[in-house]
Amino acid sequence: MSKHLTKREDDYSKWYNELVVKADLAENSAVRGCMVIKPYGFAIWEKMQAELDRMFKETGHENAYFPLFVPKSLFEAEEKNAEGFAKECAVVTHYRLQNDPDKPGKLRVDPEAKLEEELVVRPTSEAIIWNTYKGWIESYRDLPLLINQWANVVRWEMRTRLFLRTAEFLWQEGHTAHATKAEAIAESKQMQDVYAEFAENFMAMPVVKGVKSDSERFAGADETYTIEALMQDGKALQAGTSHFLGQNFAKAFDVKYTSKEGKQEYVWATSWGVSTRLIGGLIMTHSDDLGLVLPPKLAPIQVAIVPIYKGEEQLDAISEKVDVIVKDLRKKGISVKFDTRDTYRPGAKFAEYELKGVPVRVAIGKRDLENGTLEIARRDTLEKQTVPQKEAVSFIENLLEEIQKNLFVKAVSYRNNHTTIVNTFEEFKNTIENKGGFVSAHWDGTEETEDKIKEITKATIRCIPNDAVEEEGVCILTGKPSYRRVLFAKAY
Amino acid sequence: MSKHLTKREDDYSKWYNELVVKADLAENSAVRGCMVIKPYGFAIWEKMQAELDRMFKETGHENAYFPLFVPKSLFEAEEKNAEGFAKECAVVTHYRLQNDPDKPGKLRVDPEAKLEEELVVRPTSEAIIWNTYKGWIESYRDLPLLINQWANVVRWEMRTRLFLRTAEFLWQEGHTAHATKAEAIAESKQMQDVYAEFAENFMAMPVVKGVKSDSERFAGADETYTIEALMQDGKALQAGTSHFLGQNFAKAFDVKYTSKEGKQEYVWATSWGVSTRLIGGLIMTHSDDLGLVLPPKLAPIQVAIVPIYKGEEQLDAISEKVDVIVKDLRKKGISVKFDTRDTYRPGAKFAEYELKGVPVRVAIGKRDLENGTLEIARRDTLEKQTVPQKEAVSFIENLLEEIQKNLFVKAVSYRNNHTTIVNTFEEFKNTIENKGGFVSAHWDGTEETEDKIKEITKATIRCIPNDAVEEEGVCILTGKPSYRRVLFAKAY
Repeated sequence: MSKHLTKREDDYSKWYNELVVKADLAENSAVRGCMVIKPYGFAIWEKMQAELDRMFKETGHENAYFPLFVPKSLFEAEEKNAEGFAKECAVVTHYRLQNDPDKPGKLRVDPEAKLEEELVVRPTSEAIIWNTYKGWIESYRDLPLLINQWANVVRWEMRTRLFLRTAEFLWQEGHTAHATKAEAIAESKQMQDVYAEFAENFMAMPVVKGVKSDSERFAGADETYTIEALMQDGKALQAGTSHFLGQNFAKAFDVKYTSKEGKQEYVWATSWGVSTRLIGGLIMTHSDDLGLVLPPKLAPIQVAIVPIYKGEEQLDAISEKVDVIVKDLRKKGISVKFDTRDTYRPGAKFAEYELKGVPVRVAIGKRDLENGTLEIARRDTLEKQTVPQKEAVSFIENLLEEIQKNLFVKAVSYRNNHTTIVNTFEEFKNTIENKGGFVSAHWDGTEETEDKIKEITKATIRCIPNDAVEEEGVCILTGKPSYRRVLFAKAY
Repeated sequence: MSKHLTKREDDYSKWYNELVVKADLAENSAVRGCMVIKPYGFAIWEKMQAELDRMFKETGHENAYFPLFVPKSLFEAEEKNAEGFAKECAVVTHYRLQNDPDKPGKLRVDPEAKLEEELVVRPTSEAIIWNTYKGWIESYRDLPLLINQWANVVRWEMRTRLFLRTAEFLWQEGHTAHATKAEAIAESKQMQDVYAEFAENFMAMPVVKGVKSDSERFAGADETYTIEALMQDGKALQAGTSHFLGQNFAKAFDVKYTSKEGKQEYVWATSWGVSTRLIGGLIMTHSDDLGLVLPPKLAPIQVAIVPIYKGEEQLDAISEKVDVIVKDLRKKGISVKFDTRDTYRPGAKFAEYELKGVPVRVAIGKRDLENGTLEIARRDTLEKQTVPQKEAVSFIENLLEEIQKNLFVKAVSYRNNHTTIVNTFEEFKNTIENKGGFVSAHWDGTEETEDKIKEITKATIRCIPNDAVEEEGVCILTGKPSYRRVLFAKAY
């Protein structure tokens, strides 16, 4: 692979794939469709997890852990309300390997060790969890049950891309049980808000909150609340979903509670999840042709300091100055790497930190020592500035906040410039084809129309925005009446 | 299930099983051998994870994530040096379910969707990781590679017990690569020390550090460093292992590096892991006939405060006092639950916190309001004391430290009282059978003798302690010469 990245305008998809590998985030593994998340990529995920986990706990949720495997029969129970759920999944049929009697040194599946009932590697855990909740819920005193799980899941995807769509991925899945419908709906909406807050305040990725149309809704849900982001290539990314499941799973798994009034009632449910896919969204919201650009709040290394020196003596003099700054930055909770490796030259280090999206890079050489200065470069705008060493800590602290804000503002501006209001199907097709982005249009509310539009343009309804205003109009395709606009886009 | 636990002296194993379920730690699931870790049990695991993760990072390790599945062929490569590795594992053979054409509403495995190569759900990740490291290691500049993974693994165990032995369990597995043998050995020993420090300082569980005998060593390892704890029933628990893998995996997966001198050399390796089994060890080290006893450093709730009141007015008066104390305790990083649920009576709450092992329980009633006092009960000794409200915070802070220390001292004392030095096989058999615990004895160093002793007594060599002193002696079974004692015990 060449040292330089493909340019975004030449081939966005190739740029993305190269960036993920070159920035040391992840790579494909020996297992079809499964990725290895490398330490630098995983450090970003850990930062995401820490913030989300804090937010879940602040909203009253606890973590638990449910089995990796789901007996086939539990899917059959669920199947009644989830006919549409994909059946592409990893199926465990045997529990033993043995030495192959015909081929020395080779292993084979032991034909004697066939499971009575096949086990499915969880594609999502509603079935196993609701089968468990049946034993946990008896009375109103056991509700609400507010549980989250951090886990790996597997869906046998045919076309995979690092982070965006992989056979195995990491995620969290919240599964809650409530006494009333209103409470469950409020929970689903609350988690949509939590996701939006995380996306905007930490990832600096603006999102549209809305609900899914019938055909895009999760098979077992009565309503799917979504957050939708827009990537730099004009395609939308579904970044997180929160489902109001009604009483569907309670009925499938017979989960009832005794109310205060002594009546037996089915429980109301929600589930909600975000995954390592968010890392793909993060990359495609901010990065550029030089590599990754990370918002400071999620950057594993916020500041990299590179000494430029000849000989031990100069390095010692530089280190003396830098050590103080490093200590002061760390006191403020800022993560710093002072890169004194003598196996790489400063130019190579600069390129590495650019590629890896480190928000602030500091260089300090002989002239800086004489002048009591530092060179501070910001990754988002690539601007450099010479700053007195004495002011370095407060300068960097402010700069990190400034970068976090700037990335969000830039992304909002891109999103706004790429949200187009159209009133005819010609305009619609033209916008989708040539400009991309979100397209706000009237739709007659039928699945049939939705399907036809998708067939012609590949665009789907991303959501009916929460803030859609009532407005008389006619469907762009059929001319039938419509009373609000919905958001279309081509999507990942 | 009755409200009371079976007594330990009546049936230790039954006591354990009941305790795990009644204290809301875990339960069996619909999947054979797989457990559900309930929120309270998972909260303990989260505390363990947080401390271990911090210790791993302080010793220079980074986290990453490798695939859940291992292609069968990678096990064949490894098999050459790991003939002994168990082949009882979950095997994925198909990637799709379909509606059963013969049975409406039922699913079956799609016979068309057979994998070309079977995938094994990882029982441990050496194979997939070393296959990956091959692409990451080129020169001495890439070493050492210090990586840890938090993951689920599956081993198809026939006899399972919650936390102690389950088909699926959660663990961490460190996998490191080094340029020299000495460095890899130092790493293995360092991680043994980290595990021992965690066990003793956080779990308050004393451990013996040592190395495994040939027959108890991990199949792919040149040396296995272990920490061994002693449970209240006199059985040993292997609590964590750290393996020096030599160049075995480097050779199996052809992982070489170019040294500073330009030579191609095989890499040296270690791997090390602890699992949710530690929760089983924690339970069996400290708990009693009333339920769980938790060391404060790992207790999800360190202090529970129960108000004893009649009517809203009294509760308000109590809350006013308690709120201040709660705030001050939290400021000191102490986790407190003020239990104002009106759906349970104080007696039921006391029993619940006893069962769940909350280290300190505070009760406050009308008389306390008048006297400006509180009743503080410690879970480890069950002692109660009346304390002025003004002194409550510092009293509790000291008490938590005192409990942490006391639990360790008690466990050390039990361990010392149950470590017996014997010189004849009669004494050995007698001790193993009637007293249990560790037995320190001379052994001739052969696998044959070890096997015979196991056959006769069910005791195995837990380890050759790091601090074993040179001492002339004769093997208890064969009378052959021996120069140091080893530790035997029956084990979990």
